Amino acid sequence: MVKVGVVGYGVIGQRLADGVALQEDMQLVGVADVAPTLSIKALKERGMPYNLYNALADNQKLFDDAGIPVSGTLEELVDECDILLDATSAGVGAKNRKLYEKYGRKAVFQGGEKNDIADVFFHGYANYEKGLGKQFLKLTSCNTTGLIRAVDCLDRAVGVEKIAITIIRRVADPGDYHRGLTNALQMDKAPNHQAVDLMTIMPHIDATGILVHTPVTHGHIITIVATTKKKIEKQDALRLFKEHQRIRVVRIADGFLGNASLFRYARDLGNPRGDMYEIAIWDESIVNSGDDIMFAVNIPQEAVVIPETMDAVRAAMEMQTDRLEALSLTNKYLGMGRWK
Amino acid sequence: MVKVGVVGYGVIGQRLADGVALQEDMQLVGVADVAPTLSIKALKERGMPYNLYNALADNQKLFDDAGIPVSGTLEELVDECDILLDATSAGVGAKNRKLYEKYGRKAVFQGGEKNDIADVFFHGYANYEKGLGKQFLKLTSCNTTGLIRAVDCLDRAVGVEKIAITIIRRVADPGDYHRGLTNALQMDKAPNHQAVDLMTIMPHIDATGILVHTPVTHGHIITIVATTKKKIEKQDALRLFKEHQRIRVVRIADGFLGNASLFRYARDLGNPRGDMYEIAIWDESIVNSGDDIMFAVNIPQEAVVIPETMDAVRAAMEMQTDRLEALSLTNKYLGMGRWK
Amino acid sequence: MVKVGVVGYGVIGQRLADGVALQEDMQLVGVADVAPTLSIKALKERGMPYNLYNALADNQKLFDDAGIPVSGTLEELVDECDILLDATSAGVGAKNRKLYEKYGRKAVFQGGEKNDIADVFFHGYANYEKGLGKQFLKLTSCNTTGLIRAVDCLDRAVGVEKIAITIIRRVADPGDYHRGLTNALQMDKAPNHQAVDLMTIMPHIDATGILVHTPVTHGHIITIVATTKKKIEKQDALRLFKEHQRIRVVRIADGFLGNASLFRYARDLGNPRGDMYEIAIWDESIVNSGDDIMFAVNIPQEAVVIPETMDAVRAAMEMQTDRLEALSLTNKYLGMGRWK
Amino acid sequence: MVKVGVVGYGVIGQRLADGVALQEDMQLVGVADVAPTLSIKALKERGMPYNLYNALADNQKLFDDAGIPVSGTLEELVDECDILLDATSAGVGAKNRKLYEKYGRKAVFQGGEKNDIADVFFHGYANYEKGLGKQFLKLTSCNTTGLIRAVDCLDRAVGVEKIAITIIRRVADPGDYHRGLTNALQMDKAPNHQAVDLMTIMPHIDATGILVHTPVTHGHIITIVATTKKKIEKQDALRLFKEHQRIRVVRIADGFLGNASLFRYARDLGNPRGDMYEIAIWDESIVNSGDDIMFAVNIPQEAVVIPETMDAVRAAMEMQTDRLEALSLTNKYLGMGRWK
Repeated sequence: MVKVGVVGYGVIGQRLADGVALQEDMQLVGVADVAPTLSIKALKERGMPYNLYNALADNQKLFDDAGIPVSGTLEELVDECDILLDATSAGVGAKNRKLYEKYGRKAVFQGGEKNDIADVFFHGYANYEKGLGKQFLKLTSCNTTGLIRAVDCLDRAVGVEKIAITIIRRVADPGDYHRGLTNALQMDKAPNHQAVDLMTIMPHIDATGILVHTPVTHGHIITIVATTKKKIEKQDALRLFKEHQRIRVVRIADGFLGNASLFRYARDLGNPRGDMYEIAIWDESIVNSGDDIMFAVNIPQEAVVIPETMDAVRAAMEMQTDRLEALSLTNKYLGMGRWK
Repeated sequence: MVKVGVVGYGVIGQRLADGVALQEDMQLVGVADVAPTLSIKALKERGMPYNLYNALADNQKLFDDAGIPVSGTLEELVDECDILLDATSAGVGAKNRKLYEKYGRKAVFQGGEKNDIADVFFHGYANYEKGLGKQFLKLTSCNTTGLIRAVDCLDRAVGVEKIAITIIRRVADPGDYHRGLTNALQMDKAPNHQAVDLMTIMPHIDATGILVHTPVTHGHIITIVATTKKKIEKQDALRLFKEHQRIRVVRIADGFLGNASLFRYARDLGNPRGDMYEIAIWDESIVNSGDDIMFAVNIPQEAVVIPETMDAVRAAMEMQTDRLEALSLTNKYLGMGRWK
Repeated sequence: MVKVGVVGYGVIGQRLADGVALQEDMQLVGVADVAPTLSIKALKERGMPYNLYNALADNQKLFDDAGIPVSGTLEELVDECDILLDATSAGVGAKNRKLYEKYGRKAVFQGGEKNDIADVFFHGYANYEKGLGKQFLKLTSCNTTGLIRAVDCLDRAVGVEKIAITIIRRVADPGDYHRGLTNALQMDKAPNHQAVDLMTIMPHIDATGILVHTPVTHGHIITIVATTKKKIEKQDALRLFKEHQRIRVVRIADGFLGNASLFRYARDLGNPRGDMYEIAIWDESIVNSGDDIMFAVNIPQEAVVIPETMDAVRAAMEMQTDRLEALSLTNKYLGMGRWK
Repeated sequence: MVKVGVVGYGVIGQRLADGVALQEDMQLVGVADVAPTLSIKALKERGMPYNLYNALADNQKLFDDAGIPVSGTLEELVDECDILLDATSAGVGAKNRKLYEKYGRKAVFQGGEKNDIADVFFHGYANYEKGLGKQFLKLTSCNTTGLIRAVDCLDRAVGVEKIAITIIRRVADPGDYHRGLTNALQMDKAPNHQAVDLMTIMPHIDATGILVHTPVTHGHIITIVATTKKKIEKQDALRLFKEHQRIRVVRIADGFLGNASLFRYARDLGNPRGDMYEIAIWDESIVNSGDDIMFAVNIPQEAVVIPETMDAVRAAMEMQTDRLEALSLTNKYLGMGRWK
């Protein structure tokens, strides 16, 4: 059993902890955070299913005052684990890395950190092999993770030469009060970082794109115009997407009218938090544009990186050396593709 | 075991089914709907934990085409149950009532129906006794249900003479595409129906108020200015609210910044769908206004009526004749107040 | 002086009336509507700068009760005009067309009507000549009008072969309560009608695209991936756009952060209603995608069709037979390009 | 002619400048700002109708680079004026005050500054006399300004003893990207500062209330429960409000469905920027609550303080010593009540 710790118990950290707990070949040693946030208070109300470690000594009194049991310090957590999943706020990971180095532990960082924090910029499907045995891996961000799933799926079948993407980005998560947008769309400078990041992982593809922020909380939508080496017809693309374990093909005609339908569907499934690990592709969005193929993808920003982070643990710890074997185990333990 | 059927498997119907399934002294016979909606498709993806009955014969082919197993017709469901929880669209309940009458079954209707559909307009806390043994009960709507919880709590302690309320109403549920509001507040004619409905159930109180629709999806907020028979200080009101099993007192200082914090907290608790049965009252919102008391309540519109509907089954079926005994059982099976 | 009447005094109709009033070679005979709406009440509060005609005899009492002076019936307005600008709700124009035919009058319909209502589907820049002398013209819708401006600009310089567009559509106008979306993005079936419409007017271009509705009110944003006959570099595209009289090139660096900045800027200009006739293109959005060019356009949905409708009057009435001469007069009277 | 300068040319400053320009007994010397913002760029595009003064010497190059003509420094503007209207960001006014003192000039500060910046906390209707001849006046904030108009109107007629208010606050102005809220309502600690501020100006009234932020941009809505010395019936309150020059009584039945209808109506009136100086009260919102009266007010946050700031100039400069005479002149020059 690989011993895993989660550092930072926010939107991503909570889901990483749940994801690790589902992997039958991993053991969740505990989670760490710096203060008794609402998420930590929820952990307490749930009866402390996970051990909590205090990542900021000065705040011990805050945990005590809130009646929240603490199992040790962050340093102790690091010591007890084989690998740490760092889901702290952007910039904190770089500081934590020194601690991981001190104890000779491996770590997986999330997309908010700078690329040079890690030995490899990682995506389970696209470059699993590059992560094998590495000490420090950095995941792609939520948008890039989902984007690569779809592009890699096409690329392995017909070869992708070039993509031009439009990211319609959700601006906040449900419950966020520290950021938001009201009745406005906001432009980012082109090309967006997701296209640039994709090229780091898939250097044979020419990628660019435009990102527009929108005042919603449930999932990004990305439109992709892909130039393939071999022209692919809609029906063939559809078939490829349907076979992918981390893609859910949905239809407007069935009631999947947009990102909010997918969130509601995940809630109706009874999924904890209404989370969904799969990206979705709308059947009716797939069209040929000359010899190119165009389609729209939904990215459930809160949970989409969980599977690829599990893959990263498998690669870093060399639990499986074969890409497909590793992906398949992650998928099985997370219950992905069960419904296909 | 009282045999219960749920008619209409939408936002409320799904949650009623889950709520009944948790009551150890009730048996969920099944749920009925007219078409393979997304909610029904989610039921199938979950492996059909509940039996499904088809409420519209003409649509049987749609269920077959979607590969959804059907256990019978709505009429068969009615025949097999002691009591039906009707959560159909407004107006349909009146039609269904004839079917319930044909089989001599009892039924509980939701707030969207007209009052004259039922023998009694019901609220578990405020008038449990009036529902005892009745054939047809109608629940209060989500806002009124939550409002009465808070007002009844004060009323039993110090007597409430008059309330003036402002309802800041969420305009759609997450996933709704058939209604919505964009960058606008919308006025309703005063007095709002919730104040009028409250007076039907609590006729000794003079109630009025103004309702404003807002473009959000997670919970209504109601401010209440209550004139009490005996002046009540903030600390005493706070104590009363904290003791109530269906009220959660929260603090802005703890991170409960608004309705979206409560939704996020319920998700972090791992509650299915991120649902919460309790209304919330903000500690920092409670202020005296002369001899009156003013405070703000959050109403989780999707789940708030579930406990009171369970109470209604208990009353109609005379499972408990004592109000507090009935409420206490509902609360226990739904896990309410566990965290206090 | 060409005598012009405006039928339908809603969002578009009001702006058409103002636009006609600014054309020194046209005379606004009056405007017609069916009831004393808020827009008509505003006309009254302004002191009736335009004559009002009643388009629904049965409603004369409503106008009288509201104290709004009426100059005649719709039929009388038609009789007094050379050409009618029909800005009624979708579908009504088809009915009105019979009235225009009865009096042998010309008419320009807006984008909501079906294409077969008119002799030609018209855009001032792209196919002015086709409108010359025609009796019935139909304008492109707001998105298509703005889209064609940008595409035609490139097409005349370097030839456009193919476009793939993503429309990020605003879902309602400011003040709309009859439609809206709350915290949701909504998908349309691809290809969107704007791409199809563009091909009707520019049949040499292969166009497709995806449309996503967003919960905002101030302007659509369209991203365009254009395959040109001759590769065009960013700086050259930028220069072309800057020279265009109906395009405003803006920079994020200057504070034009999104669609809402443009609305605010138009308000700060003191433009009546905060309207803007120009589409905007963000400098920082223009990027090459291989040999293609990609960029983002803002469409001010309420006012963007006014200039092209003025062009349509010029074409239908053969006021100018030369395209550039006509466009130039429209621009001059509307004050477009003045600031370049 | 009283010489007036406007310091800070943002949302409020622009409107103050326009307001001063309309007062026939005042002369707008110029406006000052620290950088070529979008609002300043719009001023340039309009052809510099107002002289611009540079408030930050270091930024002169920015103005030059943007081709914006500058008439002098802030200090020169102060020197040339009798009174300055300070509409700078919160906190800057305190610094500017020293400059005004150096030149012995008077100044009116906006609601964002601390109360101790001024000799008197001012509202034209409620305490005009207190401002007479004072050097430094501070206006109430937008919500408080509108609130006091309505409460003062009732107070002068029947005496107001106590109010309990609920402020449904818009969270950003159109075009704001530096603040926003997405799909969330946010609570403030009670009592809100508006109630506290009102008591500073109207110390005989006991005021408290709750404020909730909502994700909209067009106008706050306040519900007021007022306890009056003498009971007032709805029809009498309605008559008082209708007679008030700065209140516009509107009806849902006429199409004024909410705050966005009022914004649209102001745009339809052709008002520059779609601004409205009046607060609105909905006829159908007025209800008796026992002996109290309850109603809902709309506050157009961008323009509502302009009239009271003009009143402040009149008081500080002792242009009129009689309250009603002063208010009446402000109203006349701003065109208020013209439509009654």
